[in-house]
Amino acid sequence: MNILFGVDIGGTQIKIGSFSEKGELLDKWAVDTDLSDQGKRIIPAVAGEIRKYASEHQIPMDRIAGIGMGIPGPVDKDGYVKVCVNLNWRDFNPVTEMEKELPGVCAAAENDANLAALGEYYCGAGKSASSMMLVTLGTGVGGGIIIGGNIISGSHGIAGEIGHITPHIEEHEKCNCGNTGCVDQFASATGMVRIMKKLLKSGEVESVLTMEEDFSAKDICTCASKGDPGAKKCLEICMGALGEALSVFSHAFDPEIYVIGGGVSKAGQIIIDAIEQEYDKHFFLIEKGAKITLAALGNDAGIIGGSILAAKHAGLK
Amino acid sequence: MNILFGVDIGGTQIKIGSFSEKGELLDKWAVDTDLSDQGKRIIPAVAGEIRKYASEHQIPMDRIAGIGMGIPGPVDKDGYVKVCVNLNWRDFNPVTEMEKELPGVCAAAENDANLAALGEYYCGAGKSASSMMLVTLGTGVGGGIIIGGNIISGSHGIAGEIGHITPHIEEHEKCNCGNTGCVDQFASATGMVRIMKKLLKSGEVESVLTMEEDFSAKDICTCASKGDPGAKKCLEICMGALGEALSVFSHAFDPEIYVIGGGVSKAGQIIIDAIEQEYDKHFFLIEKGAKITLAALGNDAGIIGGSILAAKHAGLK
Repeated sequence: MNILFGVDIGGTQIKIGSFSEKGELLDKWAVDTDLSDQGKRIIPAVAGEIRKYASEHQIPMDRIAGIGMGIPGPVDKDGYVKVCVNLNWRDFNPVTEMEKELPGVCAAAENDANLAALGEYYCGAGKSASSMMLVTLGTGVGGGIIIGGNIISGSHGIAGEIGHITPHIEEHEKCNCGNTGCVDQFASATGMVRIMKKLLKSGEVESVLTMEEDFSAKDICTCASKGDPGAKKCLEICMGALGEALSVFSHAFDPEIYVIGGGVSKAGQIIIDAIEQEYDKHFFLIEKGAKITLAALGNDAGIIGGSILAAKHAGLK
Repeated sequence: MNILFGVDIGGTQIKIGSFSEKGELLDKWAVDTDLSDQGKRIIPAVAGEIRKYASEHQIPMDRIAGIGMGIPGPVDKDGYVKVCVNLNWRDFNPVTEMEKELPGVCAAAENDANLAALGEYYCGAGKSASSMMLVTLGTGVGGGIIIGGNIISGSHGIAGEIGHITPHIEEHEKCNCGNTGCVDQFASATGMVRIMKKLLKSGEVESVLTMEEDFSAKDICTCASKGDPGAKKCLEICMGALGEALSVFSHAFDPEIYVIGGGVSKAGQIIIDAIEQEYDKHFFLIEKGAKITLAALGNDAGIIGGSILAAKHAGLK
């Protein structure tokens, strides 16, 4: 049996999964990311994990059909990474490095959000769709687009940058990007806390969170689920901003389905409802636009996407 | 030599082009569109033109490698047209009709803006790009997206609908779609005249057009080229609206190049400059976004795109 590896390289942890050629997840594990020496120890560490796994499971190296890696930053077509701040990489190609470490093994790399999107498209919430966009709501807002099975990364690698669309909401604070009023300032975990604090300060809403010195996006979602009016208002604004931006993306490339993932999405259907409400309001051309749904693969989306990328590169998919 | 036909079916005229298998335009001509009998005479008329051309040029019917047709409305993958108001079609499939008329000939149909985009991508202003969007500025604003040689029409056929993006410009009049402040209300020929009239009425601008009872978008562009301050202001607003919307589309699918076509684009570089100015203002993620340029094929884009669609369907491209 040939084996594929999906690898999700993050700034804190590296997740690794072994897969059968048919795409079944066989084993998964994680190791800490060693960022020292300009991140140059990362690829040898991954290669070491793969070598160890192969040896423990008596898998000859020529049975490794491919390795697909997710990188938290922009990746060129040949795997080249100009800058990846989270991994301390500069002018670095993880694909050629991996192929030096494991000669004869076919490696490939992609942006991690694109890879998670590939996973959700083939094995998760986008399984039956012809086109899909994954939106990840975490510390920031990320996105990955798949059309007809292919990742759309764009000519400058910025396709799917939903976080920097500016909905029609008055906002005076600046986004990290330099613009004002970006989706990222509302729909990210950081953005939600910011908006909730603004709401509490304005005194316009009632909320049990008034009593808390500090709270998280998760706390806001929990309160909203319990009917807290202030938290509900916060969700309405923050997920509404995303809903408007998704309606704009529908006018751009009209995906069949939006899949919402990332930490914030764990709050569940309440998030989807708030997004949909505003999405529908901005749709005049057709009665019903894209389906909006929760991600299905959770933290495994990256390694699953990695195994699919590896299979595609090896000509198996 | 095998022959391909590109056919651009409009509400007034049908343009037909004959092409060599290599894509050279051999002949082109146009006939009036007969909209009577619920548009059912259109396809037989096109088939008649092709039969006549083949007979006059002693081309046996089995040498016709394919026919690609552009339709002014949404077209499903198999060529089915639910409604096309401009051609009086309802529940109609021009592909099966054409194949009934010319048995053994392979036909295909696409939305006309998508087809023109295909033409510009393979043979016009987008020739060297990997991804492209054609924006047509006419009575309305249309769009067609090509990524890696493929038309992106979207899951509901509304991909590339740049005309119904709402930039951050205050507007109280309603667009035909029911929404308010759409790009179509500014950057179309109709929109430009509307904005110019508003500017003149406000008394805030000076313009020689104050003296005219009626004027066209072309007049506005001519005046702007000559330095008329009112007309320049109008272009700034109208093409600025488009520029902002294009920056949004760059965050969505990040094309390498935007190609601006349609009647209004005949005004030339002055249009591009006004679009670019606002496009750049809305770009914070990367230093330089997409290239923005004028279309190269003029009225032939549709028939050229038609011949490429035909070649693709026949497996020649």
